[in-house]
Amino acid sequence: MLGEFETIARLFAPLAKGWPGAFQLQNDAATLGLEPGEEAVLTLDTMTEGVHFLPDDPAELVAKKLLRVNLSDLAAMGARPLGYLLSLAKPKERGEDWIEGFVSGLREDQALYGLHLLGGDSTSIKGPLSLSLTAIGKAPAGKALTRGGARPGERLYVTGTVGDAALGLKILSGEALGLGGEDRDHLAGRYRLPQPRTALGPNLIGLASACLDVSDGLVGDAAHIAEVSGVGLEIAAEAVPLSSAARQALAADRSLLETIVTGGDDYELLFTAPDSAAGRFDALSREHDLPITPIGRVTEGAPKVTLLDESGRELAITKGGWTHF
Amino acid sequence: MLGEFETIARLFAPLAKGWPGAFQLQNDAATLGLEPGEEAVLTLDTMTEGVHFLPDDPAELVAKKLLRVNLSDLAAMGARPLGYLLSLAKPKERGEDWIEGFVSGLREDQALYGLHLLGGDSTSIKGPLSLSLTAIGKAPAGKALTRGGARPGERLYVTGTVGDAALGLKILSGEALGLGGEDRDHLAGRYRLPQPRTALGPNLIGLASACLDVSDGLVGDAAHIAEVSGVGLEIAAEAVPLSSAARQALAADRSLLETIVTGGDDYELLFTAPDSAAGRFDALSREHDLPITPIGRVTEGAPKVTLLDESGRELAITKGGWTHF
Repeated sequence: MLGEFETIARLFAPLAKGWPGAFQLQNDAATLGLEPGEEAVLTLDTMTEGVHFLPDDPAELVAKKLLRVNLSDLAAMGARPLGYLLSLAKPKERGEDWIEGFVSGLREDQALYGLHLLGGDSTSIKGPLSLSLTAIGKAPAGKALTRGGARPGERLYVTGTVGDAALGLKILSGEALGLGGEDRDHLAGRYRLPQPRTALGPNLIGLASACLDVSDGLVGDAAHIAEVSGVGLEIAAEAVPLSSAARQALAADRSLLETIVTGGDDYELLFTAPDSAAGRFDALSREHDLPITPIGRVTEGAPKVTLLDESGRELAITKGGWTHF
Repeated sequence: MLGEFETIARLFAPLAKGWPGAFQLQNDAATLGLEPGEEAVLTLDTMTEGVHFLPDDPAELVAKKLLRVNLSDLAAMGARPLGYLLSLAKPKERGEDWIEGFVSGLREDQALYGLHLLGGDSTSIKGPLSLSLTAIGKAPAGKALTRGGARPGERLYVTGTVGDAALGLKILSGEALGLGGEDRDHLAGRYRLPQPRTALGPNLIGLASACLDVSDGLVGDAAHIAEVSGVGLEIAAEAVPLSSAARQALAADRSLLETIVTGGDDYELLFTAPDSAAGRFDALSREHDLPITPIGRVTEGAPKVTLLDESGRELAITKGGWTHF
C-alpha cells in the first residue's frame, strides 16, 4: 500500500494536471476563476458500497457513475462542467489495484467530458466504501435552469428514451423480459453507466422554463417540477419515448409501463418550454443526435402529475400495473 | 423517521435560507456568483465514525469539527468563507435526534462564521457514519495563499499556541500530565473543537509568502512548506508559543516536546513572510487578539525542517523524545 501522500502524488495528481488552481493537489484548497457574467454551479452526490453499487462492481464503472450522476445535475442546470472535488473513504481491505481502477475510470471520463480534479480528501473508514463527489460547472449569471419556472400552457419534453435503466436493473436481477441478448445488454448498460446530457444542457438556457434530470423516475421527477413551479403536469403515456428494447418488453408485458414511468436512473433531461421554442428543439435534436420528445403539457391547478392514455383518460397506479380510473 | 424529502425540507432547508442560489435545496445544484477580481476557493474534508470521531461524540460537536477543519483550509488560503455542500451517509440506526443535533451544530457555526448551506446529499450507508463537507470561499483573484512561495531569508510565523490539541488528546485518553482540572479542560477543548483562523487569514494576503494550517503537526506541516517551496526551514524550539497549560506539562516532562511539535489538530496558521512585513503582524495580532509569533527562518538548500535548541544546536527525534545530534 502506498501512503496517503504517495498515492495522491502518483495516482491523483495527474488528474489535476491542466488546472493550475489545483496546485498539483499540494495545497489546502483549490481556486476557480470565472469570466464576467458567469456564475459557478455546484452539486454533490454520494454513493456507498452495498447501497448505490455492489462490492464487486468494477472500480472504473463506480468512478464513472459517481462522476456522471453529478454531471447530469450540472446539465439539468444548463451548466458546463469545469472540475470536481472527490471524497474517498476506503476500508483497508481495498488495495491499491482498486484505487488504480477507480482513477483510470475518472481519467477516461475527465477526457470525455472535459473537466479536472481540483482537490479532495482520501481517508479510511471502518466499513464499506463511501464516495462523494462535488462537481463544479459554470453558467451565464442568473440564467441557470431551475425546477421553478414552468408555466401553464407550456409543453413538457424529455430527452432520449425513458425507462431503460429500470428495465436494465430487472435484467441484471435475472429477469429476461422476453428479450434477446443485444436488447438485454442495451438496457443493462443504460442502468450501469448513465449518459449525462452535458452537451445539450447549456443549449436549453433561454429556451427551457424549468428543467431537471430524471433520476427518481419520470413521474416522480415531473412531480418535483410541478411542486416547485406550482403547476399541474399532464403526460401522454403513448408519447413517452421508448427504446426498441423497452418497446418489445412492454409489448410482451403491459404491466411494465409502471416500471418504465416510475423507475429511476435514466439521467435524461425533463423540461418545460413555451410553444414558441418548439422549432429549436428539432434542430438541437439533430445537432446532438438525441431525441427530444414532447410528452405533455403544463396545466393550471394543484401541483400534480397526471398520466393519460390514448383517449385522454387518466391512468392510475394499482398493485401490479396501471389501470384506468 | 422522516423521509428524505421531509428531512431536507424541515431540517436542512433552513440552513440554506439567505443564499438565493441554494433554491431552498429544491434544485439539482446551487449557484454562486463572484464580484469582478474575485475567485472561488474550494476545499473538501471527510470524517468517518471510529476514525475521525467516536460513535458517542455529541452530534453538535461532530458537525462543528467537520465545518471548522474545512474553514481552516480556507483561512490558510486567505479566503473568506461563503458556503458549503454537505455529504451525509448515515446508517439506519442513527435516528432523527442525531440529525437534529448535527443540524443544530451547523446552525450555530453558520451564524458564527457567516456562511450558508448551498446543497448536498443525504443517503444511507451499511456501516459507520461517513461525513464529507465541501467549503467554498472567495479570495482576490490570483492572490490566494499557497504553500509554494517561501523564500530564503524570510521569517516563519505561527498563530496562537502549538501542541495543545495533541496534549488534549492525551488527556482525553486518560493521562493527567500533572495538570489541574482547568488546564486539562483547556487542552481537551483545543482538541475537541478547532478554532479556525478565518478572521486573520484574509489579512495575510499580500503579507505572507506561503501559508498552511497546522493539521498534521508543526514539524510535519512545516515540511510541506519546505517541499513545495523548495527551501529549508529552521525552527527555534524555545520560540514555539505554548499555552500556560502546555508549558506546565512540558516543565514536568521534557519528553512532551515531541508531542508538542509533531502532534496535529491545532488548526493554527503557519506562514512565511519577508522581514519587511514584520511590523504588520504586531498590529494584526492586537486587532485579532491572537498571538502571531516568529518561530524561525527560511533557509537555502534542500527541503528540510530543522529544530534548534537555545544554543542553535539541532534537535533530533529519538524514541521517547528529542535529543541533540
